Amino acid sequence: MYDLIIIGGGPAGITAGIYAARKKLDTLLITKNYISQAGKAVWIENYPGFKGIVGLDLMNKFKEQLDKLEIDINEGEEVKGIKKKGNVFEIRTTEKDRYTAKTVIITSGRDPRPLEVPGEKEFIGRGVSYCVTCDGPLFARKIVAVAGGGNSAFMAAFELAKYCPKVYLVEAGAKPKADEINQERAKAVEIIEVICNAKIKEIRGKDFVNSLVYEDQLSQKINELPVAGVFIEIGSLPATGFVKDLVDFNERDEIQIDPETCSTKTPGLFAAGDVTDIRDKQIIIAGGEGAKAALSAYYYLENLK
Amino acid sequence: MYDLIIIGGGPAGITAGIYAARKKLDTLLITKNYISQAGKAVWIENYPGFKGIVGLDLMNKFKEQLDKLEIDINEGEEVKGIKKKGNVFEIRTTEKDRYTAKTVIITSGRDPRPLEVPGEKEFIGRGVSYCVTCDGPLFARKIVAVAGGGNSAFMAAFELAKYCPKVYLVEAGAKPKADEINQERAKAVEIIEVICNAKIKEIRGKDFVNSLVYEDQLSQKINELPVAGVFIEIGSLPATGFVKDLVDFNERDEIQIDPETCSTKTPGLFAAGDVTDIRDKQIIIAGGEGAKAALSAYYYLENLK
Repeated sequence: MYDLIIIGGGPAGITAGIYAARKKLDTLLITKNYISQAGKAVWIENYPGFKGIVGLDLMNKFKEQLDKLEIDINEGEEVKGIKKKGNVFEIRTTEKDRYTAKTVIITSGRDPRPLEVPGEKEFIGRGVSYCVTCDGPLFARKIVAVAGGGNSAFMAAFELAKYCPKVYLVEAGAKPKADEINQERAKAVEIIEVICNAKIKEIRGKDFVNSLVYEDQLSQKINELPVAGVFIEIGSLPATGFVKDLVDFNERDEIQIDPETCSTKTPGLFAAGDVTDIRDKQIIIAGGEGAKAALSAYYYLENLK
Repeated sequence: MYDLIIIGGGPAGITAGIYAARKKLDTLLITKNYISQAGKAVWIENYPGFKGIVGLDLMNKFKEQLDKLEIDINEGEEVKGIKKKGNVFEIRTTEKDRYTAKTVIITSGRDPRPLEVPGEKEFIGRGVSYCVTCDGPLFARKIVAVAGGGNSAFMAAFELAKYCPKVYLVEAGAKPKADEINQERAKAVEIIEVICNAKIKEIRGKDFVNSLVYEDQLSQKINELPVAGVFIEIGSLPATGFVKDLVDFNERDEIQIDPETCSTKTPGLFAAGDVTDIRDKQIIIAGGEGAKAALSAYYYLENLK
């Protein structure tokens, strides 16, 4: 039986792992991969310590730091369920029916939010992508669109503008939500065209994507953009399919935590980072929350003694 | 008038500055210096992204990142008072009677906690120090003591053990509070001697320190250690002298905040990091809290519009 099982290998999970290992907790970290939302980031400028770094490079630095410490890591494994029997948590994964632990921290992060329009699912891998870092270079010299108007949409557009002749940024609202610094930068990049008030209706193609159809919310006119790729950057959904009655959820399906301690309603079960109801989804904040959660697990275990 | 004034240049203040600049807030950061508690750390292994780094080097990386952004910085200036008149904050410093801002974030951190024993004040700079990184090398080939038993005391002892023939670590409690990983490491360093249940009574010397006097709490015996230096690492006190009625304090004189938003009881006044009542004083956590506070200031300003 482990002292602690951490579910997830993003910034919150890795930081929790670093803190747990330093407290000599017997810890297992289970993660599908180390990519997380942070690892998909094209370029990160707001994590203190790095003026600018590719998301995947930052996640590799986090992972290398964790690898140096005494902690068990199961990569490529997916958690399917959690139960609590008495004081013991039981975790079922794709690889094994039952791991047991005295405490658990959920840091499973988020999955990309789908557009839910015709053509989206059909063309995944054939023009539709949720990760510019992963798939962007396949679209060199092609016209592409980014769906969304937040920071990640703008960063995706900047990256694509390096090798695409034209990048449409298609935002449903009247004004993008991205940081002002990114909106100003976009104005200076001629090949990026920001289209606001644009409700995406369909992704069309034959073998591969060849257009994006949207409705102009002001004129109600239907427009069709001739694009070979659509990068969907409209936010994300908490990855909580494996946990049910042990936690409460808010209206956005995020796990409700006590913000001082990262506790959930189940004693010994903690949650941290973007999977929780914390207001701002940011790497530095997720890291801080992961540290808090690990220290809460440590104090909880000390009290059991 | 500024949108935001940040008081303090440690991890919380710099992260708040990075986030404020990215949101294009017209921001002034006022700080005595960039050292902070983090910058005094001999060696940091628990800030994600760096396997191991000298505290001052990490703070320099933070500062360089902030310097790239559009933000006013007044270094070497100390805040003496804050008032709120109507919706405007007025800040008085050692350099100027009045800066004005719509919002303020207090990230003034902590000052070292003094032992408060005879000889301590008298021998500051002549054998008594609160910063091994700053003063340690002056004690090469001399016998020294570290007062304290937390992580910072152990890290101080490890550093001193590199160039001192003997390092006493003098802890008042029955057991040090440091992470288990550090306590185990200390056992492997022969020249470090951990003395527990030791209540320090006096620091003695003539021109310079030449001994540390403590009482063994178990035997009530008085002992005298022949040391040339005493490094005091017994924790810290929140640096809040300049702020009075605008915030509430807890029993440890820390500023009480709403942990979700870093708000204080005064609208528009936020606080983040080690100066607040947050449970764990850690760099990654302070960074996360600084980001939260800056985003809270941004949302507050948006609501004023």
